[in-house]
Amino acid sequence: MKSHIKTLPASVYLDHIQLTDGFWNQKQTLIRNRTIPAIYHQLDKTGRLASWDLNPDRQEPKRHKVIEMFWDSDTGKWLEAVGYSLHTHPDAELEKLADELISRMVKAQQPDGYLNTYFTVLEKDMRWGNLRDFHELYNAGHLIEGAVAYYKATGKRDVLDLLARYADLINERYGPNEGQERGYPGHPEIEMALVKLYEATGEERYLDLAKFFVDERGQQEPHFFDQEAIRRGEDPDDYWAQTYRYCQSHAPLREQTEPTGHAVRAMYLYAAVTDLAHETGDESLAQVAKTLWQDLVAHQMYLTGGLGPARANEGFTFEYDLPNETGYTETCAAIALVFWAHRMFHLDPDGRYIDVLERSLYNSVLSGISQQGDEYFYSNPLSSYPNVDPHDHFSGITSAEYYRRKEWLLCPCCPPNLARLVSSIGSYFYSTQDDNRIYVHLYNTGTADIPLGEKSVKIDQTANYPWDGDVRLSVSVDAATSFELALRIPGWCRNYSVSLNGEAYDGQPEAGYIVISREWQSGDTIALTLDMPVERIGANPHIREDAGQVALQRGPLVYCLEEVDNGPQLANIVLKADAALEATVDEDLFGGVPVIKGKAVRIEPSTWPGGLYQPQSLVDYKRSEIQLKAIPYYLWANREPGEMRVWIRED
Amino acid sequence: MKSHIKTLPASVYLDHIQLTDGFWNQKQTLIRNRTIPAIYHQLDKTGRLASWDLNPDRQEPKRHKVIEMFWDSDTGKWLEAVGYSLHTHPDAELEKLADELISRMVKAQQPDGYLNTYFTVLEKDMRWGNLRDFHELYNAGHLIEGAVAYYKATGKRDVLDLLARYADLINERYGPNEGQERGYPGHPEIEMALVKLYEATGEERYLDLAKFFVDERGQQEPHFFDQEAIRRGEDPDDYWAQTYRYCQSHAPLREQTEPTGHAVRAMYLYAAVTDLAHETGDESLAQVAKTLWQDLVAHQMYLTGGLGPARANEGFTFEYDLPNETGYTETCAAIALVFWAHRMFHLDPDGRYIDVLERSLYNSVLSGISQQGDEYFYSNPLSSYPNVDPHDHFSGITSAEYYRRKEWLLCPCCPPNLARLVSSIGSYFYSTQDDNRIYVHLYNTGTADIPLGEKSVKIDQTANYPWDGDVRLSVSVDAATSFELALRIPGWCRNYSVSLNGEAYDGQPEAGYIVISREWQSGDTIALTLDMPVERIGANPHIREDAGQVALQRGPLVYCLEEVDNGPQLANIVLKADAALEATVDEDLFGGVPVIKGKAVRIEPSTWPGGLYQPQSLVDYKRSEIQLKAIPYYLWANREPGEMRVWIRED
Repeated sequence: MKSHIKTLPASVYLDHIQLTDGFWNQKQTLIRNRTIPAIYHQLDKTGRLASWDLNPDRQEPKRHKVIEMFWDSDTGKWLEAVGYSLHTHPDAELEKLADELISRMVKAQQPDGYLNTYFTVLEKDMRWGNLRDFHELYNAGHLIEGAVAYYKATGKRDVLDLLARYADLINERYGPNEGQERGYPGHPEIEMALVKLYEATGEERYLDLAKFFVDERGQQEPHFFDQEAIRRGEDPDDYWAQTYRYCQSHAPLREQTEPTGHAVRAMYLYAAVTDLAHETGDESLAQVAKTLWQDLVAHQMYLTGGLGPARANEGFTFEYDLPNETGYTETCAAIALVFWAHRMFHLDPDGRYIDVLERSLYNSVLSGISQQGDEYFYSNPLSSYPNVDPHDHFSGITSAEYYRRKEWLLCPCCPPNLARLVSSIGSYFYSTQDDNRIYVHLYNTGTADIPLGEKSVKIDQTANYPWDGDVRLSVSVDAATSFELALRIPGWCRNYSVSLNGEAYDGQPEAGYIVISREWQSGDTIALTLDMPVERIGANPHIREDAGQVALQRGPLVYCLEEVDNGPQLANIVLKADAALEATVDEDLFGGVPVIKGKAVRIEPSTWPGGLYQPQSLVDYKRSEIQLKAIPYYLWANREPGEMRVWIRED
Repeated sequence: MKSHIKTLPASVYLDHIQLTDGFWNQKQTLIRNRTIPAIYHQLDKTGRLASWDLNPDRQEPKRHKVIEMFWDSDTGKWLEAVGYSLHTHPDAELEKLADELISRMVKAQQPDGYLNTYFTVLEKDMRWGNLRDFHELYNAGHLIEGAVAYYKATGKRDVLDLLARYADLINERYGPNEGQERGYPGHPEIEMALVKLYEATGEERYLDLAKFFVDERGQQEPHFFDQEAIRRGEDPDDYWAQTYRYCQSHAPLREQTEPTGHAVRAMYLYAAVTDLAHETGDESLAQVAKTLWQDLVAHQMYLTGGLGPARANEGFTFEYDLPNETGYTETCAAIALVFWAHRMFHLDPDGRYIDVLERSLYNSVLSGISQQGDEYFYSNPLSSYPNVDPHDHFSGITSAEYYRRKEWLLCPCCPPNLARLVSSIGSYFYSTQDDNRIYVHLYNTGTADIPLGEKSVKIDQTANYPWDGDVRLSVSVDAATSFELALRIPGWCRNYSVSLNGEAYDGQPEAGYIVISREWQSGDTIALTLDMPVERIGANPHIREDAGQVALQRGPLVYCLEEVDNGPQLANIVLKADAALEATVDEDLFGGVPVIKGKAVRIEPSTWPGGLYQPQSLVDYKRSEIQLKAIPYYLWANREPGEMRVWIRED
């Protein structure tokens, strides 16, 4: 570690944290008991596991070349989720399953270190032939991340060594030196992974390779992907995605100022940029990350933290373009935003990054997985109208997967991504800085043993977050110890109180955190109360899709209307500007969830004269008072299928 | 002609009509002077004319196989437009140009009668190989329509004979008999053309072939397009459009009850179905046409008469799915709806068909062409937000052609389609029935010599329609003659008056027409006054995209807001429910056009606290009174680029 890093915080890894009860304990239990086994079952059923035996007969019912190229990444993410889960919940049987898989992976490695089942078996000639489209380095990255997580959980080096050998082969091939190729991945991912591999092994060459990939991006003239295409005998102008903005290589990375193209690629890249700025102290790189971030949150993010309005490029379009019903907002993009936001905090310690992390996590991320833990959304629009003829998949608008989660997806990047994020959520709770400060970012019931320099600080949290804003923390130390405890005051919270050992504590937040500096003793307790009223949220007046509408939020949770509670034609429901809105727990909803209720009107013709359009003067519009009921957005589509809507008309 | 036809009306062909002044005269002048030459220039420049010399080197700067397959159809439509134009405005130079082209076409015909430049030169092996996708019969259809129009205008048989020989080859190959192939076109068009060829030649075999194509559609098991695909060595499941609903062959035609798939294909098919029901008296076929029509107008048509919300299939999705900004609404689909509506009237004489014809014609059709006559829209959405990075064509939303007309289109089906419709608009003005009735459908200044049995009736019209609703008609006959004159009272008109020779005429409309039955004398005059107030139009409460919004219409014209008149962020403009709206002529707008003005408010924050979302309680929303100005929708995008919006929020 370089010296400047001392001034930046570092996150506390999940092996120091146990989430013992409440929201995240439930989610982690679900992931452990339902999601990880369900994904393993799918990896097996679809041939992904068998592919490690380098069997060429790995056709699914129908070959999808483009999908099979990504198969290895699914294994990598599953292994990563398993690693995190074993940390907090050792499970010999699960570990055995993973070990068996790893032994198959070890046998699949080629003599030179190469490790990719698709190009080893099915398209040998295309090895390293198309970094732009073929996800070869992306697969490597996910395998590396899986290996690091599994190694850190179990201490078993075989999988780490396996991937280090592969990383060495990649490092030999790509780089700035004579005889090396100046390539970089079309789908960034390996950059973050290489930083993790560097941290796990201490080998600086992996960090340098990540730097190379980032710095080389969009540099060459002619463009590297053009050179590659010509080598393949293709016309570079035939690039299916039409623009290198799609893969963020339209300009050198350091000249880029706004998120663009495929949202997951963008987030993975910017997260790696942030990692590298953090690790190397490169101020200009840090500035690039901050500029990109600022543009994202100022212009291109949904209220739910979802990213990427467009299906065509699975990504960004232009500022303030945030359509609700057609919003693509891939689950993986929201997950990747969590990754990036977390890294941004550690580069630039400020609670506003964690505000975005929370926004994405509690809304667009969790929307991706069913309450049962075994069905998934790829896309998380803010409005859904499911009246689609299921026989017309070429309707041009949508298919069932837009309003019902599925047990598996043709491109199943999201399910194991959800599993690895939720399994590792402990790592997002605390950070330390200068051996003198502990940041508390997230609130939930659990315990943490936090190393702070030579000392160790134990923090017990009790919180029913996000359902209410009462948080209790108690500190245990071996001996009285001076340090700063920085409690995050979420951006959504406008009234809060802090008490220390029963007495009110007055302090203004610094960059989103109340910092309590004192000599701590075991038994010190803090009560933090975050007022959590129902908020009506208005959108920036440039977002044309949300004009005249309001969204409901309580705490970090964005709410939505569903047809099952409010009837069909949600577009005809109008919230009165002065109507009281109350949160009350609905005991019948998923074991008891606060819902928002209030008076609204439904404006509809008493009778419609027929046809599609009528002079208004011929129509008698009736305003019927109704009781509106909103549920947390992430819970939508867990009951009867029907319409859903986040933005509600307001009069 | 079969006897039953006597009970159905027939349209009066354009050779009996001259539009001498006013709206349509101006449009036809524009088409003659600007559009037809501009299209010829493009046909020449892109190699379409040279392709008739069977030169294999007909690459545009970049080959677009899929587009080049349709080249012949562009020639066909141009020739058709020329034919119509020569009828009303003889032009020796233009005729010479057409004759030269025809002589090249004649040389291109193969010994067996085959006439398709693409498959003759570039993909010989694929002749008749893919009716599903390759538009071979579609090209034939457009050439036939062009030949018939040119023949009727000039009496020159060479082009008619040329296409009749080709039709004979097609008729030999396709049919129900032993040794024939039971195929039909993926893109309907030839069916309508064959009916015209039958009418021009009197040869019943062309009518029978059209019937065969219609009746065979979706009949076979396995599906004909599956059989074809297998013959090509393809897996039918790989069909790129995913469903035969795309090309209306998912079920036998007579079992289809709702418009589906690609909108232009659907309209051309249903128009042919209506032709055949009219020609053959097939009652069940007539019922199919009526059922499809009823579903279209009840569930799937935009206020502008635009059809097909989805870009993916260039067509229909599901009922009430009529998004504005992403609406595809191809110009050709609106044109094809005019064709179908016109035919529906003659099958089932009722003014409601002409109401739809007018709605489409004055709005979605004319939106397709610039005021200068040489730039075209492919797509005619009801809302446009042009703030797109022009470098990001893969934004997933839109490209410049969505908000600026272009002088030519990669797939230029629309420009010559506009030219042929406007050139032939005279044919849509009058119909006769039972040698005893003259229908007047459309109003504009011009003269008509209408054959009615043995007699001839001359009608002089004076009308400044659609700008005002005052229409004067005078009748001239050789001798006093009894017949019925049926004057259409448009569906949009709720107050009107008729006077005959200066005296009020009282009569209730029958199926949308005031029928004046009398013995007419030369000099009889009729004054029809159609009140044309500004109407606020409301949408069916199932159309979620239009909820809480209103559209403005005056006469047949739908109006829209443009940024150049109303400033940006049109979504923030709210029309007051009780605001007076007035039409006044704006003399500076395209030589003087009635615009709609009224008071509205712009609701925007006095200052926005920053970011994308804010608690409403932190925002001070200001309501500024503004003067709203709406212009006819079809005129949009003829001034400075900017936002456009048909549906306006209303409080």
